Amino acid sequence: MTGAKPDQAAAARTTGPAAARQRFRAGLRVPTSGWAPGYAQANLLAVPAEHAFDVLLFATRNPQACPVLDVTDAGGHRTALAPDADLRTDLPAYRVYADGELTAEVTDARPYWRDDLVTFLTGCSFSFEHALARAGIGVRHTDLGRNVPMYVTGRRCRPAGRVGGDLVVSMRPVAAADVPRAVEITARHQRSHGAPVHIGLPADLGIADLDTPDYGDPPQVRAGELPVFWACGVTLQRAVMQSRLPYAVTHAPGHMFVSDQPDER
Amino acid sequence: MTGAKPDQAAAARTTGPAAARQRFRAGLRVPTSGWAPGYAQANLLAVPAEHAFDVLLFATRNPQACPVLDVTDAGGHRTALAPDADLRTDLPAYRVYADGELTAEVTDARPYWRDDLVTFLTGCSFSFEHALARAGIGVRHTDLGRNVPMYVTGRRCRPAGRVGGDLVVSMRPVAAADVPRAVEITARHQRSHGAPVHIGLPADLGIADLDTPDYGDPPQVRAGELPVFWACGVTLQRAVMQSRLPYAVTHAPGHMFVSDQPDER
Repeated sequence: MTGAKPDQAAAARTTGPAAARQRFRAGLRVPTSGWAPGYAQANLLAVPAEHAFDVLLFATRNPQACPVLDVTDAGGHRTALAPDADLRTDLPAYRVYADGELTAEVTDARPYWRDDLVTFLTGCSFSFEHALARAGIGVRHTDLGRNVPMYVTGRRCRPAGRVGGDLVVSMRPVAAADVPRAVEITARHQRSHGAPVHIGLPADLGIADLDTPDYGDPPQVRAGELPVFWACGVTLQRAVMQSRLPYAVTHAPGHMFVSDQPDER
Repeated sequence: MTGAKPDQAAAARTTGPAAARQRFRAGLRVPTSGWAPGYAQANLLAVPAEHAFDVLLFATRNPQACPVLDVTDAGGHRTALAPDADLRTDLPAYRVYADGELTAEVTDARPYWRDDLVTFLTGCSFSFEHALARAGIGVRHTDLGRNVPMYVTGRRCRPAGRVGGDLVVSMRPVAAADVPRAVEITARHQRSHGAPVHIGLPADLGIADLDTPDYGDPPQVRAGELPVFWACGVTLQRAVMQSRLPYAVTHAPGHMFVSDQPDER
């Protein structure tokens, strides 16, 4: 949970994507849920070129969890998703891994960038939260100023070369009567995980305790609400870490790249 | 143009995908448009593993032309799209290329398969033709027993490594009043190129003469019809050939892989 007060935080977030990136570049370290409403957000993962095929193939074989929005050439730090952005500095927080072990968590990844890194940007469910909110379906964790809860499921993804792992999901509580509309709305956001993968029964996904997510902050599910689960981009991050690739740079969970692309297209 | 009489051909085509593959495996060499109605068809491209990342990245960067349906591991000839199929024998015709030059056209690719080949199956517009026909929008080239006309456009695709080239489109004439429904219907088939890329003005795409397609058979456009253009999977094949990769095996244009997957999903 972050220390920001919900009201202050809500005001700061309603900015454009370039202004948001500027604040993150200047050092602000917050989850990006609710920031730059109406613009797509993305997961970031940079790996050495020799492992890029396995990563891209894993994403291709598991498109609901890993919708690929852009891939840089080796060493690149620019993206067609936001031409003025610098992928090494413009996210609120990065994690650096060696052999699958976390070695650093930083707000500026420039000291950790390498000429052989191929960077993947994949769709993020934060991109459809604005559409849900516009339709009157509140997004609890944003309203509370928290990070979204994320869970490792028992569902195995299709592996690719040395990259493999389990599906990770994000969860949002939705009033039972709103669940059909939440499905319809998110189904239109194919490049942001699309429709939910599961609704209502966490145990079916192998989630033992909703109150203890594997990533993010604990949820607040109220009477009359169902837990709704969407495929999550952390799936790819986790698969790469479990595969113990020698080196990787990622966004910190919930601290995404804010792009200039509209959230629905 | 094939020699089959339209009536006989139409009867033969209304079979299931496994039966269609069996006939092609036995040597029948015909374009697959209209075969196994209701099932998705796919482009096939096999390249040496050392070039597979560039090919997959090109497809990822140009998803409307190259929607990836499946990718095998190196040397594989099986696919999740049709578990009993053999990708080396079950297409009506293959082409083999060395350094971008056609070296063989065969109905059995087994003598040309190699242990280092990674095979890509990408979506094909034949997959949505059944949906058009069901909606009362006739598919001219199928009705005539011809191959679809395909054209190289002046639109450059986003390159990837050494793989680059121009967008290739397929064309179907559609009665002007039916064009909006044709757009709606095909837009639902995202994994088969989706909505058209252009309608009505071939010159805008850099197509000088509709009567002389670059691939397939000449079209028959009637009064009151507009030429409607969809992105075409030959885009990927052509880019790979122009990139002069040392070796590749592909389907022959219009002679696709017929899968067990429903054409809309």
